[in-house]
Amino acid sequence: MKALVVGGAGFIGSHLCDALLECQILEEGKGIKVVCVDDLSLGSEENIGHFIARDSFTFYKTDASDIDALEDIFQKERPDIVFHLAANSDIQASAKRPEIEFKNTYSTTFAVLSCMRKTGVKRLFFASTSAVYGDKREMLLDENTPNLMPISYYGAAKLGSEALISAFTYMNDMQSLIFRFPNVIGPRLTHGVIYDFIRKLRNNSLKLVILGDGKQTKPYIYVSDLIDAILHFTFRITEGVTLYNVGAEGDTSVNKIAEIVCAEMGLTETKFEYTGGESGWKGDVPKFGYCLDKVHSAGWKAKYTSDEAVRLSVRENL
Amino acid sequence: MKALVVGGAGFIGSHLCDALLECQILEEGKGIKVVCVDDLSLGSEENIGHFIARDSFTFYKTDASDIDALEDIFQKERPDIVFHLAANSDIQASAKRPEIEFKNTYSTTFAVLSCMRKTGVKRLFFASTSAVYGDKREMLLDENTPNLMPISYYGAAKLGSEALISAFTYMNDMQSLIFRFPNVIGPRLTHGVIYDFIRKLRNNSLKLVILGDGKQTKPYIYVSDLIDAILHFTFRITEGVTLYNVGAEGDTSVNKIAEIVCAEMGLTETKFEYTGGESGWKGDVPKFGYCLDKVHSAGWKAKYTSDEAVRLSVRENL
Repeated sequence: MKALVVGGAGFIGSHLCDALLECQILEEGKGIKVVCVDDLSLGSEENIGHFIARDSFTFYKTDASDIDALEDIFQKERPDIVFHLAANSDIQASAKRPEIEFKNTYSTTFAVLSCMRKTGVKRLFFASTSAVYGDKREMLLDENTPNLMPISYYGAAKLGSEALISAFTYMNDMQSLIFRFPNVIGPRLTHGVIYDFIRKLRNNSLKLVILGDGKQTKPYIYVSDLIDAILHFTFRITEGVTLYNVGAEGDTSVNKIAEIVCAEMGLTETKFEYTGGESGWKGDVPKFGYCLDKVHSAGWKAKYTSDEAVRLSVRENL
Repeated sequence: MKALVVGGAGFIGSHLCDALLECQILEEGKGIKVVCVDDLSLGSEENIGHFIARDSFTFYKTDASDIDALEDIFQKERPDIVFHLAANSDIQASAKRPEIEFKNTYSTTFAVLSCMRKTGVKRLFFASTSAVYGDKREMLLDENTPNLMPISYYGAAKLGSEALISAFTYMNDMQSLIFRFPNVIGPRLTHGVIYDFIRKLRNNSLKLVILGDGKQTKPYIYVSDLIDAILHFTFRITEGVTLYNVGAEGDTSVNKIAEIVCAEMGLTETKFEYTGGESGWKGDVPKFGYCLDKVHSAGWKAKYTSDEAVRLSVRENL
């Protein structure tokens, strides 16, 4: 079996490549060949350096929104399944430049689907996000929550991508798996609150400036848990679009993250300062509850809680 | 007041330009200046010929997905409000070429919103569609119907456009009105079932080939009713995104449309033949019920029922 991982040199993508390369297809007792496409704009060669020389791994430094370049890869490699994780993952950056989401998040999805359609590839995994729901802090978000109103360009491009997957799946008799997940953390972080706090505290251990009021509270999932869920469900999907909220149990406030980072760094004198306001930045959803009933009922649960995921990730990134 | 109508030479757009040029802003007692942008790919000069020479009307033959060209128009014209009706409206055509929807439906929306953001225009009307819901024939579709799963590339691009509007509206403190409407009919049709039947029967009045089994049943709204709803709500919107299902009461089967067309053409000998299957083509939703409670509660109702809209449209297009 050959898997194409689009965005495979990124944070989540490189962990997925790791796992796929170790994975044995049960029926066949064979390994999976992994083809990785990444433009290395957010991903890095470092993330894939430990397996780039393997025979079962092929890397293309290609912008996945370039539909012609991507089609050449599809034509040459003829993958059996596509994992599409290419996206802008730096939501703060695109708040000032929505065209980043148009190109890196939406257009990559359109290009991936167009290439699948042209070359007859039927199986897709897509990394979506809790940001598609918008700011509904009064509700527990489940897969049937109505009236999705994203407040970030990132959430909008991901919701648009889900809509594309729905239509392409129907029109071309594909099988697609969509996970909506919240913050993913673990080794190889390149941005986000844990990464920021460590960087700031290395610079000045006496003062930590926290965006917002520190009370923003979200569920965090450890990357190995997410990868486990991807592998658990992807090879079981049958027809049409299957969609799950995927996350860890519990949630963690930004203040608690700050405390964990300081504790793990052995800092006891750090003063916290706040920029103020409910959100870290405009377009950030400060608080949400995530219903995981559907994915739990389907037989999967995260190993680590949100707090445990945070503590582990801090250690891995120190 | 100056209104920019994107897609203003199209079927619905040109009727909207007509109405805006006749419209008086109540508070000011003044008319509205209308700026029309259209690439004339589906729209036509014929549609706007009767008012193109008016001082209060300006026309740009421009592809609205060309963000730089569109921004020049925004910078020059500085509209107070934007009506975005540019889209691919020929859903059968894009079923074979999804890139049409990427460019003409989604990318035009991204370009319009980017230009509004850059030039500080705050008020938007957007023409969305019942196709965003997907095939949910067992349900009455209302604005809070969950789990939207479009089955056409057209529906996907419109749902993606709604998501963009949600994020841009939040991020830039805009006021946006979205109508999801089903089939719109009336003078100046360029395609669709009524147009097709008239064309076929003029060619051969003895035989009419009907796509599908003829039992496809949908609500049809007369274009002047839709324009009336646009004008009724657009100047009343206050903040954020307001979304309505807009339609006429009742629905009309394809078989009934065939009967009405034959009756209005004075044909009594026509034999109907069917291509078979539930849908006219793959991606077409053959049947749906449309809940209009929200728009009715807000004080608006269509003048014509679906059947009346069909009969009027047949007469207008003969």
